[in-house]
Amino acid sequence: MNSIPYKTYLDEAELPTQWYNLRADMKNKPAPLLDPATLQPITAQALGRVFCDELVRQELDDSTPYIDIPQAVRDYYKTFRPSPLVRAYNLEKHLNTPAKIYYKFEGSNTSGSHKLNSAIAQAYYAKEQGLKGVTTETGAGQWGTALSMACAYFGLDCKVYMVKVSYEQKPFRREVMRTYGASVVPSPSMDTAVGRKILQEHPGTGGSLGCAISEAVEAASSIPGYRYVLGSVLNQVLLHQSVIGLEAKAALDKLGVKPDLIIGCAGGGSNLGGLIAPFVGEKLRGEADYRILAVEPASCPSFTRGKFAYDFCDTGNICPLSKMYTLGSSFIPAPNHSGGLRFHGMSSTLSQLYHDGLMEAIAVEQTAVFQAAEEFARVEGILPAPESSHAIRAAIQEALRCKESGEEKTILFGLTGTGYFDMYAYESFHDGRMTDYIPTDAELAQGFAALPKV
Amino acid sequence: MNSIPYKTYLDEAELPTQWYNLRADMKNKPAPLLDPATLQPITAQALGRVFCDELVRQELDDSTPYIDIPQAVRDYYKTFRPSPLVRAYNLEKHLNTPAKIYYKFEGSNTSGSHKLNSAIAQAYYAKEQGLKGVTTETGAGQWGTALSMACAYFGLDCKVYMVKVSYEQKPFRREVMRTYGASVVPSPSMDTAVGRKILQEHPGTGGSLGCAISEAVEAASSIPGYRYVLGSVLNQVLLHQSVIGLEAKAALDKLGVKPDLIIGCAGGGSNLGGLIAPFVGEKLRGEADYRILAVEPASCPSFTRGKFAYDFCDTGNICPLSKMYTLGSSFIPAPNHSGGLRFHGMSSTLSQLYHDGLMEAIAVEQTAVFQAAEEFARVEGILPAPESSHAIRAAIQEALRCKESGEEKTILFGLTGTGYFDMYAYESFHDGRMTDYIPTDAELAQGFAALPKV
Repeated sequence: MNSIPYKTYLDEAELPTQWYNLRADMKNKPAPLLDPATLQPITAQALGRVFCDELVRQELDDSTPYIDIPQAVRDYYKTFRPSPLVRAYNLEKHLNTPAKIYYKFEGSNTSGSHKLNSAIAQAYYAKEQGLKGVTTETGAGQWGTALSMACAYFGLDCKVYMVKVSYEQKPFRREVMRTYGASVVPSPSMDTAVGRKILQEHPGTGGSLGCAISEAVEAASSIPGYRYVLGSVLNQVLLHQSVIGLEAKAALDKLGVKPDLIIGCAGGGSNLGGLIAPFVGEKLRGEADYRILAVEPASCPSFTRGKFAYDFCDTGNICPLSKMYTLGSSFIPAPNHSGGLRFHGMSSTLSQLYHDGLMEAIAVEQTAVFQAAEEFARVEGILPAPESSHAIRAAIQEALRCKESGEEKTILFGLTGTGYFDMYAYESFHDGRMTDYIPTDAELAQGFAALPKV
Repeated sequence: MNSIPYKTYLDEAELPTQWYNLRADMKNKPAPLLDPATLQPITAQALGRVFCDELVRQELDDSTPYIDIPQAVRDYYKTFRPSPLVRAYNLEKHLNTPAKIYYKFEGSNTSGSHKLNSAIAQAYYAKEQGLKGVTTETGAGQWGTALSMACAYFGLDCKVYMVKVSYEQKPFRREVMRTYGASVVPSPSMDTAVGRKILQEHPGTGGSLGCAISEAVEAASSIPGYRYVLGSVLNQVLLHQSVIGLEAKAALDKLGVKPDLIIGCAGGGSNLGGLIAPFVGEKLRGEADYRILAVEPASCPSFTRGKFAYDFCDTGNICPLSKMYTLGSSFIPAPNHSGGLRFHGMSSTLSQLYHDGLMEAIAVEQTAVFQAAEEFARVEGILPAPESSHAIRAAIQEALRCKESGEEKTILFGLTGTGYFDMYAYESFHDGRMTDYIPTDAELAQGFAALPKV
C-alpha cells in the first residue's frame, strides 16, 4: 500500500476562496499595457470599452496579493473542482525512474481543459455588469467551449470566432458550443473589417489566434451591450487560473510533498501562469525554491526564439500593446495540431519572470509530443490534449534524466486537458502523416521586422 | 453553505475491496444459460471455450455474495475511481423542484463511461490465464474504448467488432481505440462466416450489437490464445459493475442520505445492474425499500414490450441462450443514436427482478432524451452521453412530479458517461433532423415468431 494515493482531492471546504495575484510579489512588475492610439500606458476608461469594468480593475491591479472569488463563481467551481492531483505511479513504473511524478489534471470537465476556471469568472462579471453578451476567439476550441458553458450558466449570449484551421479540424467542437447555445464563426470571416482585410492579404489562410482576437474585439465594439473576453495572455486570466496552483499546492502540502521542478505547456500562458503562481510567489518572497519549466511548440517558439518587446496581441493591431516575448503579431505559425499553443506572443507576467531568470523554457517538436501523448495514454489511461502533451514530453525527458543520474526528484506538471476533440491529429500521427514545422531564422526575422517601434 | 457538498468522493481507503454478487440474495435465481447445441444448462467446460476460466466461474456462481477484487484491478481502479457522487443543486434549482437529485457520474475517464469497471477486470483475468488477446463487439464505442485501454494496460491484443452505424457515426472512437493499440472492424464484416451470412441476408444493414457479438465470438474461437469478452448482459459484468452501486451507497451513507428512487438507463443492463446491486440487495433481504426504475429507448423496448423467454444473445445464434426480456435475436432496431442501448435482450438478472416486480421500466423517445440532455448540459455543465440521457429524462420527469405533488423525494440516477463522441447525434438534434422510431406491433411480432422453442 502506497502512502501517497493515486489521486488526491481536496474537500469542498478546502477549496480556495481567493485567487492569488502573482504580480503583487514581483519586484520587477510586468510592463503596463499601452494604448494603441497613443502608445502611452492604457487607462481604465479605454480598457473599459473592450473589457468588463471589474476585469479591467483586475487587469491593472499589480499590488493586491489576494482577490476574493465571488460566491457564485465558487459555487460553479464546486461543480467541476477540485481537480485531482494525480501521482503518476504507472508512468514512473513504465519509465523505471526514481523520479516522483505528479500531475494536476484539469480535463475532467466538459470544456476538457482548465479554461473553465477563467471563463466562469469572466461571464460572472459580465452578467453583474448587466451586459447582454460577450465575444471571444478560440484556437483549439477549449476556451470557446468553456466560455459557452459559462455563458449558458449565467444566461449570456456568446459569439465565438474560431481559428479556421481548428474549425475544420474539429467540427464536433462547434457542435458542443452549439449545445450550450453559442454561435461559432470560422476566422478570418467576412463579418468584420479586420477579417475581410486579412482574407484579402492572405487568401486561403487557416487563421491564427491573433487574427481571431482582432475579429472578436471588433465585433464586441460594434454590438451594444457586448464586451470582449480573452482566455489567456492577460493578467486577469492568470489571476483566475491561480486556482490550479493554489489547489495543487494545498494538496501537495497535505501530502507533505515539495516539488523540485514544475512543468507546464505555454501558449499564451494561462495554464502555466496559474499552475506556478503560488510556487513562484514563495520563490519571489525567498521562502522556497523551485525550478520552473515552460514547454512550447518548436513551430511557435515565443520564449525560446522570440524577442522581449512591446507588441500587439492581435494580428489586426487594434488591441493594446503588451511587453512580452513575441514572434511579431504578423507571424502566422505553420499548421500545428496544438491549436491552443499557436499564439505569437506570451503573457507579460510570464515574460517578465522569464526575462528575470525565474523560469526556463524549451521548445519541443510535434511528433515527439504525440509520441509522449500515446505513451502516457497507454500507461496512465487519460488521452491527453496535444497542448498538455508538451508538458508530458518534458516531464518524461526529465524523469529519464533522473533515471540516468539516479536522482529522486519530484516533478509536478500541468495536465491541462483531454484530446477527445483532437482525434484528427492523433489519426495523422498514427498514419505517419504528421510532420514537424520549425520556422527558419528568415521567417522569424520577418515577424521581428514588423514589431512596432515603441 | 449547503451541508451536502456538490461532489462527494470517497477516499482511496474507502474504495470497495469486493464486488457484490446480487444473485446470491435472490430467491428466484436467474435461469441458467443454455448450451445452443443441446438446449441444456451450459457446462463450465463449454463456456470456457469462449470465456476466460475465472470469468466462467463468476458467470455461474449465484451463491457467493462477495467476491474479492484482485489487487491489480483495485490499483487500476484507483487511477479513475472513486467516481463522484454529485448533488444536482443546479438542476434542482432549474426545475424548481423540492426533490433532491443525486447522480453517480461514471464519465470521468477516457472510455467516457462505466465500461472500464468491467473491462479492466476481464483483461486482468485474460492476462492471468496467459492468453494472447481478446475479441469483443462495441455499439456506441464506449465498451470497445474501455477494453482497448484495459488491454493496453495489461499488454493484451484487442480486436473490436464495432456496429457499423456507430463506426460511421463515430470515426473518432476508432482513433481513440487505435491510440490504445486495438484493431477495429466495422460489423457486419466479411471477416467471419456469420458476418458474411448477415450481409447476404441484409445488404446495407447498419448492424446491431447482436450481430457484432456473433462475429466477435466466432473470431475468438478461430484464433489460438484468444477469448471473447462482453461488456454487458452477463452476470460477470453486473458483478464488476457493482462497484458503482457500492461506491454510491457508501457515499450516500456517509452523507446520511437514503434514496427513495433509483434510476438507470438500460441497454444490456450493465450500468443499471451495477448501480442498483447493493440497494436491491437490501430490498431482497428486507432491510430497506427502494423504487427502482429502468429507462430504455422506445426504439428498442426489451423490458416494456419484450417477452420473458429463452433467447440467443446474438443474431448469429452461436452464443448460449439466456432467459430474459427480449425482442428476439432477429430484431434489428431502427437507427438510434444511443448505440449502447440497441440490444434486443437484457441481463437475465435484471429480467428476473423485473419479472418478480422488484423493479419498474419505462421507454422514452429519442428527441425527448436529447432535449433533456441539452437542458442538463446547460445547467449541470456535463455534456451527457445519449444513453445516460435516458436516465436524465426520467429523473427530470420524476422531479417535476415532485414539484406538482410537493413531495421531497430523493432521486439517485446513474450518469453513465459523456457524449463527446456523439456530436453527430447532437448535431442532428440541433438541426431538427432527429426523429423518433417506435417499432410497430407487427415488427415486434416478427421478432417474437423467431424466438427459439425451448
